Amino acid sequence: MTVEDPYRARYGPGAPTDLPDRWSDLVAAQLAHRSVRAYLPDPVSDATLTTLIAAAQSAPSSSNLQLWSVVAVRDPRRRARLAEVAGGQWHITEAPLLLVWLADLARARRIAAEAGASGEGADYLESALVAVIDAALAAQNAALAAESLGLGTVFAGALRNDPLAVSRELGLPAHVFPVFGLVVGHADPARPTGVKPRLAQRVVLHHERYDDSTQADGIGDYEKLLADFYTEAGLEPSWVRRVAERFGSVAGLRGRDRLREAFRRQGFQLR
Amino acid sequence: MTVEDPYRARYGPGAPTDLPDRWSDLVAAQLAHRSVRAYLPDPVSDATLTTLIAAAQSAPSSSNLQLWSVVAVRDPRRRARLAEVAGGQWHITEAPLLLVWLADLARARRIAAEAGASGEGADYLESALVAVIDAALAAQNAALAAESLGLGTVFAGALRNDPLAVSRELGLPAHVFPVFGLVVGHADPARPTGVKPRLAQRVVLHHERYDDSTQADGIGDYEKLLADFYTEAGLEPSWVRRVAERFGSVAGLRGRDRLREAFRRQGFQLR
Repeated sequence: MTVEDPYRARYGPGAPTDLPDRWSDLVAAQLAHRSVRAYLPDPVSDATLTTLIAAAQSAPSSSNLQLWSVVAVRDPRRRARLAEVAGGQWHITEAPLLLVWLADLARARRIAAEAGASGEGADYLESALVAVIDAALAAQNAALAAESLGLGTVFAGALRNDPLAVSRELGLPAHVFPVFGLVVGHADPARPTGVKPRLAQRVVLHHERYDDSTQADGIGDYEKLLADFYTEAGLEPSWVRRVAERFGSVAGLRGRDRLREAFRRQGFQLR
Repeated sequence: MTVEDPYRARYGPGAPTDLPDRWSDLVAAQLAHRSVRAYLPDPVSDATLTTLIAAAQSAPSSSNLQLWSVVAVRDPRRRARLAEVAGGQWHITEAPLLLVWLADLARARRIAAEAGASGEGADYLESALVAVIDAALAAQNAALAAESLGLGTVFAGALRNDPLAVSRELGLPAHVFPVFGLVVGHADPARPTGVKPRLAQRVVLHHERYDDSTQADGIGDYEKLLADFYTEAGLEPSWVRRVAERFGSVAGLRGRDRLREAFRRQGFQLR
């Protein structure tokens, strides 16, 4: 045990009270995660990029199919254009490196075609889903690796505001889809961020069967906890209002209601 | 630097030659990952489960929406039934704990409904995708945490062979979908597994724009490298044949061509 109250920063007053019977520096590093949206211009070296990709490729891959690829974007003008796609996320231009993670069925299709097969299996939703999951597992390994090397990161799902623009920018062929970005750089120590509290474990963790009887209480507690966090950051203080706005109507998706059409135009039938 | 040739086990002779300029024990742990399919019956404690879920919740969540839940299954009979769904993956019955990760839009819909909104945004593919990605980032953190605590893990995507059977088994309400399982337990030291080699970095990593000119060579090299690994494990030695069989036809999906319909029946419109 290396800390007295390991869960407090992540959960606030509703933190689990059963103390860990096993502990590791790695878990401590995971619990200390925070997203970084303020960067110094210092570069990330090629050698470090190699390490991040090795970490990513060491994540599990469904049936070892390895259905993902990644584009490392350093060119400041390209990053600026991608920041624009992401609705003006200026930290994409601030940090020296943007990794764009791709669901890549082009490689598998090529292999199937060379074996004389139709590649028809790649047309199904399942195949796109496996590729997306593979990419996410890999990217999370890369993000955690970056933090352990003293770097900061933040995911950029907003690249999905216009996946076709991203595809053109990165020259993506058919059957390759940009899933999200990962911004990597050196956190600006003058603009630090805190650990973001999460829903109590009783809200997300179920035993044997799904049981939503603790949801209402848990969400109410979280709403109070987050109000402090968001108010301090100068943001809309209600988590509940944020969730309701995001899913309450099609407008809340900010253009991402066209995601399915974008997949189709990149050659994914999602049958 | 803690190791002389950190990439060799993961990549074989085609390992990157540029040595890391930064290194961490965490990256070393990531690179040493191996999937475990042989377990001892020793239990995983509640306290350790709490730690794994805290690690999972510490992963990034898109816009902090936290669109996932997880069911911890310990009941041996339930695990046996789920192993059956997964096509007879007996390690699900061997290990004491199965975590089933859920894309959970029910919570967000409930919040939207209580705010008087329609929740229509949740009907779109984008919303399901965010939930799946959130679940995958969380699960990868849990898997890595488990390994750092001396446990073994393996993902079980084969639960998607019949997501509706899994949903019934776990009592999942509408708008909740089982994405994959994660088996957790104590690896049987009598049946060890090796680090699985991956495609060379030049095959998956692109700079500035997607460039598939190195694919053919890279895949050929990997085919040779994997033949040794698979032959030793007593498996079909050709990676290329495995990929071609999986995507070559609808039959390769082993029932998962019905995934879209299963999502619909769980209330996901995927518009």
